[in-house]
Amino acid sequence: MTDNPSFILRGVEDVVFDQLPIPTIRDDEVLIAVKKTGICGSDVHFYAEGRIGSYIVEKPMVLGHESAGVITQVGPKVKHLRPGDRVALEPGENCRVCHDCKRGKYELCPDIIFAAAPPTHGTLSRYYRLPADLCYRLPDHLTLEDGAMMEPLSVGVHAVSNIAAFKANQSIVVLGAGPVGLLCMAVAKALGASRIIAVDIVESRLEFAKNYAATATYLPPKLEPGEAQTTYSERNARLFREQLGIEDRGPGAIDLVVDASGAPVSIQTGVHIVRPGGTFVQVGMGNPDVSIPITQLTFKEVTLKGSFRYGPGDYELAVALVSQGKIDLKPLVTHRFSFEQSIEAFKATRAGRSEDGKPVIKAIISGPDVSPADL
Amino acid sequence: MTDNPSFILRGVEDVVFDQLPIPTIRDDEVLIAVKKTGICGSDVHFYAEGRIGSYIVEKPMVLGHESAGVITQVGPKVKHLRPGDRVALEPGENCRVCHDCKRGKYELCPDIIFAAAPPTHGTLSRYYRLPADLCYRLPDHLTLEDGAMMEPLSVGVHAVSNIAAFKANQSIVVLGAGPVGLLCMAVAKALGASRIIAVDIVESRLEFAKNYAATATYLPPKLEPGEAQTTYSERNARLFREQLGIEDRGPGAIDLVVDASGAPVSIQTGVHIVRPGGTFVQVGMGNPDVSIPITQLTFKEVTLKGSFRYGPGDYELAVALVSQGKIDLKPLVTHRFSFEQSIEAFKATRAGRSEDGKPVIKAIISGPDVSPADL
Amino acid sequence: MTDNPSFILRGVEDVVFDQLPIPTIRDDEVLIAVKKTGICGSDVHFYAEGRIGSYIVEKPMVLGHESAGVITQVGPKVKHLRPGDRVALEPGENCRVCHDCKRGKYELCPDIIFAAAPPTHGTLSRYYRLPADLCYRLPDHLTLEDGAMMEPLSVGVHAVSNIAAFKANQSIVVLGAGPVGLLCMAVAKALGASRIIAVDIVESRLEFAKNYAATATYLPPKLEPGEAQTTYSERNARLFREQLGIEDRGPGAIDLVVDASGAPVSIQTGVHIVRPGGTFVQVGMGNPDVSIPITQLTFKEVTLKGSFRYGPGDYELAVALVSQGKIDLKPLVTHRFSFEQSIEAFKATRAGRSEDGKPVIKAIISGPDVSPADL
Amino acid sequence: MTDNPSFILRGVEDVVFDQLPIPTIRDDEVLIAVKKTGICGSDVHFYAEGRIGSYIVEKPMVLGHESAGVITQVGPKVKHLRPGDRVALEPGENCRVCHDCKRGKYELCPDIIFAAAPPTHGTLSRYYRLPADLCYRLPDHLTLEDGAMMEPLSVGVHAVSNIAAFKANQSIVVLGAGPVGLLCMAVAKALGASRIIAVDIVESRLEFAKNYAATATYLPPKLEPGEAQTTYSERNARLFREQLGIEDRGPGAIDLVVDASGAPVSIQTGVHIVRPGGTFVQVGMGNPDVSIPITQLTFKEVTLKGSFRYGPGDYELAVALVSQGKIDLKPLVTHRFSFEQSIEAFKATRAGRSEDGKPVIKAIISGPDVSPADL
Repeated sequence: MTDNPSFILRGVEDVVFDQLPIPTIRDDEVLIAVKKTGICGSDVHFYAEGRIGSYIVEKPMVLGHESAGVITQVGPKVKHLRPGDRVALEPGENCRVCHDCKRGKYELCPDIIFAAAPPTHGTLSRYYRLPADLCYRLPDHLTLEDGAMMEPLSVGVHAVSNIAAFKANQSIVVLGAGPVGLLCMAVAKALGASRIIAVDIVESRLEFAKNYAATATYLPPKLEPGEAQTTYSERNARLFREQLGIEDRGPGAIDLVVDASGAPVSIQTGVHIVRPGGTFVQVGMGNPDVSIPITQLTFKEVTLKGSFRYGPGDYELAVALVSQGKIDLKPLVTHRFSFEQSIEAFKATRAGRSEDGKPVIKAIISGPDVSPADL
Repeated sequence: MTDNPSFILRGVEDVVFDQLPIPTIRDDEVLIAVKKTGICGSDVHFYAEGRIGSYIVEKPMVLGHESAGVITQVGPKVKHLRPGDRVALEPGENCRVCHDCKRGKYELCPDIIFAAAPPTHGTLSRYYRLPADLCYRLPDHLTLEDGAMMEPLSVGVHAVSNIAAFKANQSIVVLGAGPVGLLCMAVAKALGASRIIAVDIVESRLEFAKNYAATATYLPPKLEPGEAQTTYSERNARLFREQLGIEDRGPGAIDLVVDASGAPVSIQTGVHIVRPGGTFVQVGMGNPDVSIPITQLTFKEVTLKGSFRYGPGDYELAVALVSQGKIDLKPLVTHRFSFEQSIEAFKATRAGRSEDGKPVIKAIISGPDVSPADL
Repeated sequence: MTDNPSFILRGVEDVVFDQLPIPTIRDDEVLIAVKKTGICGSDVHFYAEGRIGSYIVEKPMVLGHESAGVITQVGPKVKHLRPGDRVALEPGENCRVCHDCKRGKYELCPDIIFAAAPPTHGTLSRYYRLPADLCYRLPDHLTLEDGAMMEPLSVGVHAVSNIAAFKANQSIVVLGAGPVGLLCMAVAKALGASRIIAVDIVESRLEFAKNYAATATYLPPKLEPGEAQTTYSERNARLFREQLGIEDRGPGAIDLVVDASGAPVSIQTGVHIVRPGGTFVQVGMGNPDVSIPITQLTFKEVTLKGSFRYGPGDYELAVALVSQGKIDLKPLVTHRFSFEQSIEAFKATRAGRSEDGKPVIKAIISGPDVSPADL
Repeated sequence: MTDNPSFILRGVEDVVFDQLPIPTIRDDEVLIAVKKTGICGSDVHFYAEGRIGSYIVEKPMVLGHESAGVITQVGPKVKHLRPGDRVALEPGENCRVCHDCKRGKYELCPDIIFAAAPPTHGTLSRYYRLPADLCYRLPDHLTLEDGAMMEPLSVGVHAVSNIAAFKANQSIVVLGAGPVGLLCMAVAKALGASRIIAVDIVESRLEFAKNYAATATYLPPKLEPGEAQTTYSERNARLFREQLGIEDRGPGAIDLVVDASGAPVSIQTGVHIVRPGGTFVQVGMGNPDVSIPITQLTFKEVTLKGSFRYGPGDYELAVALVSQGKIDLKPLVTHRFSFEQSIEAFKATRAGRSEDGKPVIKAIISGPDVSPADL
């Protein structure tokens, strides 16, 4: 019962492959053979720094939480799944009984047990255990890689559909064209956005965004020597409007800004860009404190909301939008690694490009028994 | 037709009494003999600085916009008002046809004509003209002073009821115990708040708040030498919780924070204080840019909303809550002046206390024909 | 482990006192010594008919579900309760994992295990078992009778606050002045209603309502010979408006109608009474099919919503409103019985009055160890 | 100034062509040369019966209200339109100042002046006058016929998007596959519906729906001799689920039912079909009173809402969805008539098919100066 090879972080840049016990399941749980796992920025952050804010890796922890696999065992109370089912894994087990869980906001549960958030083991193992209701069966025409991508897609679904309540014919600006930003654009497109504008300081990322889901792109100017950030942000917003022909208010103005960058000037600019009565959603993590134009926000009655992980219904919607062909996850998977190449996968993601120079959007690590060529 | 004495601002600290033409009314308008006008911080700001942000006094402008009076003339299409009616005045005439007006957010109307916002004349005249639907009849048991106070009360109603959607048994923290902060507390009390905590750096204001509408008060500590604002804000929030025995989350945590101070450390602290999933409403104006703990806001999925002036239904609710005895406006009127004493009234409000040292919460200027003793 | 005397329904009007095993608790559960239990219309219905719709009593079932008691044992995972705590019991254990439970609508859970809904035993026993999160600690100044009344009060909270989202200064009409109707009025009053109009065909109930929470009452006229129900309903609504001076629309019109009667003409009339854009909530059970003026509902864009039991937050709000003195439950408890007098209690509730002719609003049965004189 | 040929209803089936004065416009209005007008069921109803409910044709009235045209004159205050602009007309001029207009629900305005609702003239004239904000400019790639179809499309937008707040990946059943039902399906499709099920008793209409926007169709069985309507409705709902493999609850259940039929059994069945917590929107007009399964509605906490005409934002969304290619209006226009053939157009619409036997979905009448061949 110990044949469960795992990829374990022991300290800063100190990872090892080792065996862990195969988890035993409760009556309402399932055991999953993990087949595909995407690497998230937070995994890399733990690998490189050993911590994220108050989350500190103090004892060995398996990395990974963007996973899909095949059910190998089901508890006696499980009704809707059976061995052999291919599933996407929602890697946060919430407590079910706290104030937030009961009112439908389980992403805020203080007792949530989340994969690869210390001290909880992540999914880069042969086997993983989950309550059955957190496993989402994949339709036959979706791949297990699609299944692994449901995790970051659910972050985008949560930000754009759940938190922002984005609607057909609204316009959106996404600040930051990394994986989460791109998936926010994909969700907005699937929900019927009128305009999707990608903003990034890297031209190649804008190009990718344009080919993927954006209807237009914007490359901010450089900060001029001695220019204050607040002056820059206003200038940046003005340039944005001029270049793209966007109005301050009314039907042609920007309904929603999503920041997936975490960058201070990006956030500041975003508040200037959004229309009066519009919404700004913060999903990216970066500086803990950021200066925002609060008087603008007040005059314009902007709503600024934080978006964290995902909650009820987000995985269902993610699977459905991909299943219906409204979102294509395949272009985002730029790199594939075997389980044995896990360290290489982390290094490439951390560097932002693989050794051959190709930019990484999403790297997927296969399970111990799976070839990277099997999608 | 020119007997319309008015209190006119010509430049910085340059005011004069002069005659203006009596306004002529359109078919759907009324003429009001202005009887009572409260002085707002913005009036004082124009008086002292000649501008607020991009609003600049470039030609002579009558001051005042918190007013009540008696109808003297009604247009032929006016049905629900008649001469002699005592009314509170909503001093913003919106365009009725723009995107925002039509969807019920007229406070965002770009073409709104607002009293004492340059270049529009304010209400410190014998007569004022308004569309009839912006006049709210006062029940017999309310005074004209109550009527004048409906304007700042509507600011509180808008922030707490309309924007924050505050509900019975929720808890609120109000940062800043000036007139608007006090009225936000009064609204929260009228809506059935479980706890109302006033925060201010002036002890006497906290005492007033406690006697008026707060259930508890909190006096922040002083910034220590060399202490960063972000460190201070976290310490301040921690002390706040300890002193008042307030939990981070769950039913005992803070549902709503309203900032009526505009002070940066106040706003920073507020984001730390509010519960996960809670709401923060910015109503105070101060620094145009403020640093906020954005990562906290994101993790906790806080909703931060700006609140500006008032919109549909706010005046109705203000009049109703006072009329039903749920809010008492009288304690807030600390100073009364005749029309001729207008300059004195502005000076006292600017200084924060009258010559006899009594702190000013709200100073009311009577109309040209009215004695300050007539309420 | 069998000293658990219980009041058991075996068939139509066939009840018996018998011993049942004392329940064993799971790690997250508590055992409660039941002290006070109110009798609900549904209990009486099962007693008198052996069924309610598709719920059929097929094997012996303990009656009762409106209960409060004292904790006697807690599971090892229970943190917020300890033996000796006085608690109100929420008698529905939902599954926690279905679609509806997870999105915060657990009242719709298809797998909910509800006390005294066949085949689940109710609370009229010495001991009852519940998950700890469904027990609500009572403040010291509330009685155990108050605790038992939290169940029907939560039905009112759910209908008026949760489903109707009733707000301060709105007006409400409650059709039917039985226990649930009275509690809907009490909730509306606690939430700051401007007008609360009780409607019933029994004058003494209107009188009670007036003294309890209504601001006005209305006694419908008799159906005239040969008068169609639809004609009657329109006439009834017209009379209602005339007698009470109520407008069709605008600020003086009726914002919310709650039907707590289940009577067809009552429901029909209610749709005529509510203002355009207003809300109608159905909480009473009666005829399975009822004719409604659908064209009126369409023209007026009325929202008609069903309200069933209670969901997340309802018990908390119920306990809070009583605790804050905004609702007084004591006047509703008109009759008290010992455990041994349970049959008498059911008979009185069924008859609507006790043998001495006093109308029953709510009869409370004490636990086996408790005197009816101990509240 | 009288060259304004018009198609005028004088009484039951009594229509005439006559000249009316060309309307004069106010400062904020425009004059439109009407080019295309669709015939609505209500137009036909007035033609055939002289009344709809309390709306009675008591003096000659121009028919028609589904129109598009070209601006010929603009008032001095009009900014966003100029002569030559092709526009869709929103034919209801609301009062702008009542309670409902101000809070963004102008469809409920009691003083709305609506084209071809007695005594207001409709649009079947050479010229029509409207406030500028009720004219929506058509992009170049849309036809004037598309413009005329914006009126019924806005009815669908209002029901599905505005009133039901339908979201991507939800499922919908539309009862009745006439023009409004078909347009509700088209809106649901444009908003990203997972399933769109058309229900009608006419097979050819189901076939049309399937080709147009439905993903599945359902033909109800016949009422059996002696079968009660309530029994039939339950049987019908059961058959519906069996035939289409639809679950009662959970992700696979029906989120929204829209009744566009007005037929009693249809409405009854719809309440049985919708999932617990789901929404039912009534948009069709038919019997003034309809029996609904109120206990089902209560148990399931269904929300039943009336939808009337259209409100703020509906026309904008209608134009946008067609403009973006998400809705194709062309297949719905089955018949085209010249202005002189207006009577023939009414007769065909009334009969449901033209003389050659072709079923009418929508008949369009061209303006006096326009050929039916010009779209």
